[in-house]
Amino acid sequence: MEGRNFLRFLFLFFSCALVLLYTWVHLPYDPSSSAKLHDCTANAPWCVSKNRFQTKKPNFLKNRLKPNRHRNHAADVPHHPLDPLTVQEINKIRTILSSHALFKNSATYALHSVELEEPDKALVLKWKRGDKLLPRKASVIARVNGVSHVLTVDLTTSELTVVQTGYDSGYPMMTIEDMTSAIWAPLASYEFNRTIIQRGVDLADLACLPISTGWYGKMEENRRLIKVQCYSMKETANFYMRPIEGLTVLVDLDTKQVVEISDKGKNIPIPKAANTDYRYSTMEYNKVKRLVNPISIEQPKGPSFTIEDEHLVKWANWEFHLKPDARAGVIISGAKVRDPDTGELRNVIYKGFTSELFVPYMDPSDAWYFKTYMDAGEYGFGLQAMPLDPLNDCPRNAYYMDGVFAAADGTPFVRSNMVCVFEKYGGDIGWRHSESPITGFAITEVRPKVTLVVRMAASVANYDYIVDWEFQTDGLIKITVGLSGILMVKGTPYDNMNEVPLNEYLYGTLLSENVIGVIHDHYVTFYLDMDVDGSDNSFVKVNIERQQTSGESPRKSYLKAKRNVAKTEKDAQIKFKLYEPSEYHVINPTKKTRVGNPVGYKVVSGGTAASLLDHEDPPQKRGAFTNNQIWVTPYNKTEQWAGGLFVYQSHGQETLATWSERDRSIENKDIVVWYTLGFHHIPCQEDFPIMPTVSASFDLKPVNFFESNPILRVPPNFENDLPICVSTASA
Amino acid sequence: MEGRNFLRFLFLFFSCALVLLYTWVHLPYDPSSSAKLHDCTANAPWCVSKNRFQTKKPNFLKNRLKPNRHRNHAADVPHHPLDPLTVQEINKIRTILSSHALFKNSATYALHSVELEEPDKALVLKWKRGDKLLPRKASVIARVNGVSHVLTVDLTTSELTVVQTGYDSGYPMMTIEDMTSAIWAPLASYEFNRTIIQRGVDLADLACLPISTGWYGKMEENRRLIKVQCYSMKETANFYMRPIEGLTVLVDLDTKQVVEISDKGKNIPIPKAANTDYRYSTMEYNKVKRLVNPISIEQPKGPSFTIEDEHLVKWANWEFHLKPDARAGVIISGAKVRDPDTGELRNVIYKGFTSELFVPYMDPSDAWYFKTYMDAGEYGFGLQAMPLDPLNDCPRNAYYMDGVFAAADGTPFVRSNMVCVFEKYGGDIGWRHSESPITGFAITEVRPKVTLVVRMAASVANYDYIVDWEFQTDGLIKITVGLSGILMVKGTPYDNMNEVPLNEYLYGTLLSENVIGVIHDHYVTFYLDMDVDGSDNSFVKVNIERQQTSGESPRKSYLKAKRNVAKTEKDAQIKFKLYEPSEYHVINPTKKTRVGNPVGYKVVSGGTAASLLDHEDPPQKRGAFTNNQIWVTPYNKTEQWAGGLFVYQSHGQETLATWSERDRSIENKDIVVWYTLGFHHIPCQEDFPIMPTVSASFDLKPVNFFESNPILRVPPNFENDLPICVSTASA
Repeated sequence: MEGRNFLRFLFLFFSCALVLLYTWVHLPYDPSSSAKLHDCTANAPWCVSKNRFQTKKPNFLKNRLKPNRHRNHAADVPHHPLDPLTVQEINKIRTILSSHALFKNSATYALHSVELEEPDKALVLKWKRGDKLLPRKASVIARVNGVSHVLTVDLTTSELTVVQTGYDSGYPMMTIEDMTSAIWAPLASYEFNRTIIQRGVDLADLACLPISTGWYGKMEENRRLIKVQCYSMKETANFYMRPIEGLTVLVDLDTKQVVEISDKGKNIPIPKAANTDYRYSTMEYNKVKRLVNPISIEQPKGPSFTIEDEHLVKWANWEFHLKPDARAGVIISGAKVRDPDTGELRNVIYKGFTSELFVPYMDPSDAWYFKTYMDAGEYGFGLQAMPLDPLNDCPRNAYYMDGVFAAADGTPFVRSNMVCVFEKYGGDIGWRHSESPITGFAITEVRPKVTLVVRMAASVANYDYIVDWEFQTDGLIKITVGLSGILMVKGTPYDNMNEVPLNEYLYGTLLSENVIGVIHDHYVTFYLDMDVDGSDNSFVKVNIERQQTSGESPRKSYLKAKRNVAKTEKDAQIKFKLYEPSEYHVINPTKKTRVGNPVGYKVVSGGTAASLLDHEDPPQKRGAFTNNQIWVTPYNKTEQWAGGLFVYQSHGQETLATWSERDRSIENKDIVVWYTLGFHHIPCQEDFPIMPTVSASFDLKPVNFFESNPILRVPPNFENDLPICVSTASA
Repeated sequence: MEGRNFLRFLFLFFSCALVLLYTWVHLPYDPSSSAKLHDCTANAPWCVSKNRFQTKKPNFLKNRLKPNRHRNHAADVPHHPLDPLTVQEINKIRTILSSHALFKNSATYALHSVELEEPDKALVLKWKRGDKLLPRKASVIARVNGVSHVLTVDLTTSELTVVQTGYDSGYPMMTIEDMTSAIWAPLASYEFNRTIIQRGVDLADLACLPISTGWYGKMEENRRLIKVQCYSMKETANFYMRPIEGLTVLVDLDTKQVVEISDKGKNIPIPKAANTDYRYSTMEYNKVKRLVNPISIEQPKGPSFTIEDEHLVKWANWEFHLKPDARAGVIISGAKVRDPDTGELRNVIYKGFTSELFVPYMDPSDAWYFKTYMDAGEYGFGLQAMPLDPLNDCPRNAYYMDGVFAAADGTPFVRSNMVCVFEKYGGDIGWRHSESPITGFAITEVRPKVTLVVRMAASVANYDYIVDWEFQTDGLIKITVGLSGILMVKGTPYDNMNEVPLNEYLYGTLLSENVIGVIHDHYVTFYLDMDVDGSDNSFVKVNIERQQTSGESPRKSYLKAKRNVAKTEKDAQIKFKLYEPSEYHVINPTKKTRVGNPVGYKVVSGGTAASLLDHEDPPQKRGAFTNNQIWVTPYNKTEQWAGGLFVYQSHGQETLATWSERDRSIENKDIVVWYTLGFHHIPCQEDFPIMPTVSASFDLKPVNFFESNPILRVPPNFENDLPICVSTASA
């Protein structure tokens, strides 16, 4: 007992020391700022950080470009109806709430979401720069004495309206405080600490993760639960590769009490730390492999884009509003492209963002079955988006945008460099033609492809998601999701496949001694409120079908394109079939090109994967929005989150799938297209200890939107336009 | 008559003048070179070129970087067993042939292919740099007095062996002389000239194309035929947009006689020239749209790759042999990647190239049904690959490789800058991880992605195919095909869709007044002789299947990966199914990783399309190699061309499909993987008058090939490594 108490004392002392240290190191704002920002010292534990991995940078790292941390947002003011809440607005909201009966008289409360309540679409569409700013409102989701409330706060009148109290099923997105407090909770348990020590892990080496429980029935009802699993970070920053396998602690998120401890892995060794660390500063110098000379995207005259009023991006023939969001990560609004003939800006997308993610793991055993993450609705895809690393996450000349969010107590905090914007040129070709030897004409015309990328990278614990919105001058928008980061692995007694009995299935791949990479899927569902030259659009399936000829031609068959306009939602529940191909057009039936084609954009799928889980499987019920690759719904302000507003432990009654079942009319209406990008991931050894990026994408491509190739008249590259560069060494 | 004769005279005079002009302008070699090269003056008509489109470059084009034309290849000597035939070798072959009875005594002959006959794989694999070069042989395909011969010429012994004479069906790839002479043939026809003039086209404005006839029965048997269709190039270089619709001239390729003229388009106007030209030099200055500032990939210390002995490419952890090929375009051989742990070079691919293309158009009418191109076997994918445009086709620091080929009379000629090699960096991320607010550790590790690209662009008349072989440091090879260039369009009386009767189908999209972009598919089939750590490999289907649980878990289902080793060819005839997904591994069953996984590479499909034509349709019989997305065959030196060696007018008896039907054993054997990349192309107005590039790709990705992430130890970018650049203006 003595020993154990001493250990606990040590641990607590250690933690406290670090609270102070962290606040000094990480305070995410300019101390000189007058605005009240989240004060870490007063708001442990979420600010707590073991800084043991804050490596002192060796000299050769000194010159690394620093992100522009500590940008002062105290004086930010909104300019555009869609601009996110400012530091001052968030502070005002906190004041309004705290003076309201609901909060004044309540023992405990936490704010799970404090976001701009966007004005009605009609008003935003009418609004022009220079007009008076539309009334500012905030949508707040709060848990008060264990009850979820959706509130609207009017920032002009300081009025608070309760929109809804309670909910059929599900809880709001976790706060960061929920997650960080949950991972400390088990330490209060004698049994837990004993187990850890019995596993040979020093409590000071413990790193734990909060894992959403999902919903499987009674057990997960009427209380907010989380499962905590732990790792040893002894001798590595990559503790994810050192699971204390089979140990799962069920914690009540509201009371922070340990509800249940399940330990089925006593006989499973903790994998070794050797070769798991990925930090450059820890590499032995002789093992460092510099494979290529320095290479960079260079723009001697600087980037071609401007960002007005912090959020309005203007580049080449594009204009759009860009803002960070705690749940979605990045929101693109009012994307317009300039018509090369008329010069007018034409609407393409009213609003686009990552609505939800669904990541089911494929191991039904006790410590794994519940791992079916919904990273946006459970963890906050934006909350997990960390500062980008200049020159590595984004190239030279990138612009970095900060996120301003609210902590659980309502105080604002700044997430620096959360989003970057940069121009991309990788040597690709926009269009080309050269005449062949057949005609022999001396013609070669080639145009290089330059694009604009909006990027964020969310680190949802082990995994890193890189989301790119790439705008092309030819009107195409490419949306790419890259997967990197670290696998969620499982401990095993096996060192080698030759020890595994033939009839035993590992649920994954043996990646290293005692480490299994468990098979899982990733689904990323995008909300795309398309407004092609106006809000009222139709969804057209252009089916490509074989036609048999009947003797009139030497050909027996050819392919015919048949246009089918989707009348209702069920007509637009799309499952891709390689042998029943279609194009999927969003058209404006009231607007035609010169020669009479309806203007449109098409959704072009790249490689993707479909969820194969049983539709009655609880995780798939909650992730039912992945039952199709495309859905189309009529615009409805309340239908933005594919898994429902309250996803955490939800039963899946309120998802895109249930909305679509209403089969509402979608022809020549303001419609929303939902696209799901999927990955099946069978891990391989190359993914150990950190994964090379795997990407998939889809396109929104103009189809008879322009009268002709919109980049016909762009010039090629000329030698005398390009930079003259010298290496800094020789400079 | 007088008038007509005068016109003809004018035309012939015009042509002759241009023969001389062209030879002066285009002579594709250094005149000072002593080696005998193809002499255009003596070899009209294929050198003939109307140089009317050789625009005098305005001043602002003056500084455009010139490709390094006129590189002298007279002194080239082979260093590697796979090096292509040199100028001297081709000249020697011509001498050997001309002194052989077969050619001496024959009235007419033409060489359709003069290529290196690669030494046996076993010998090449044994050969090391420094060893004596293996005996050099050439494989020659010649047509002598109307009979096809396959010959082998031994360059050491000057011996000529007749391998085969005659063939079941099909003819060799056309020579450039075939194509260029065919397009002049119709002018000998009074009827043709009258029709052209009746259509209001000046003969001097005529541009014609040689269109392979395919095979549909008796009509196309026992004689070599081609169909010629023509366009008006009045007031535009983009004559493809001005078809003389419905006029098809059937020409005998051997006699150059007009066999038949079909004219079903008299009532169809020739579309206007307005807005069809795409050349920068023709743009009105005020209409030129410069959308972005100059941007460039810069490497202050230069590129990181070297090219030894003209063909051996060494970059980062990769090494491979690269050569241009008249039929395939580009051939990659002996691709090896360096193991980061052992430092050894490990085999991945023995040989990879574009084996065949299949481009069926979807209009069964008289002037269109036969358009089902096979660009490699009919036209020569490499013969059509034109010089790349530096800074536009390929970025700064690209290396350009020339092709050396033989003309029909056996004289060598040089295709300058046919292939480029460059390093690509577009701001992408190789791998990354940052710790999240959950743990709060101050860790952000990101590595930029830099790759090496081998590129060629083939202009098969109107269309441009950009083929990229992209090598990544993480061991992945991405093969991308980009489609650009100009559509094959159809004339129509319609100006606007509102004139088209509801029940009339256009077989495509109305792109502009009187212009229809006809629907078509593109299939590009790759030959991939994988040698994963050795020649004997197995093909494994890793099927991802749903498993129902039976009460032991709260989960009802999960996905299980089941490995099935393909025993014979039919086991490896793969059709992709989104709802029956699989991974496709090429493994070495005799070599395992430290923890016991077989080393392998997997074929990863991006977006693709499948051919839906009737399998009994003549074009699909000939293109039967597109009946599956993947095939695997045992290595057989004679099975390299998916459509058969003699594709032109073939009946499809000899294709990948027929070979695979033999169902030979492929387990733990030297196997070849065939992958087909497909596109359905429904044209849209953005494709007019020239198409923005559309791309699709597939990957060859290491799967348990390395013990762990092979780029774990590469450094990130550091500010002080990157260049300092100034714009040339200010320089």
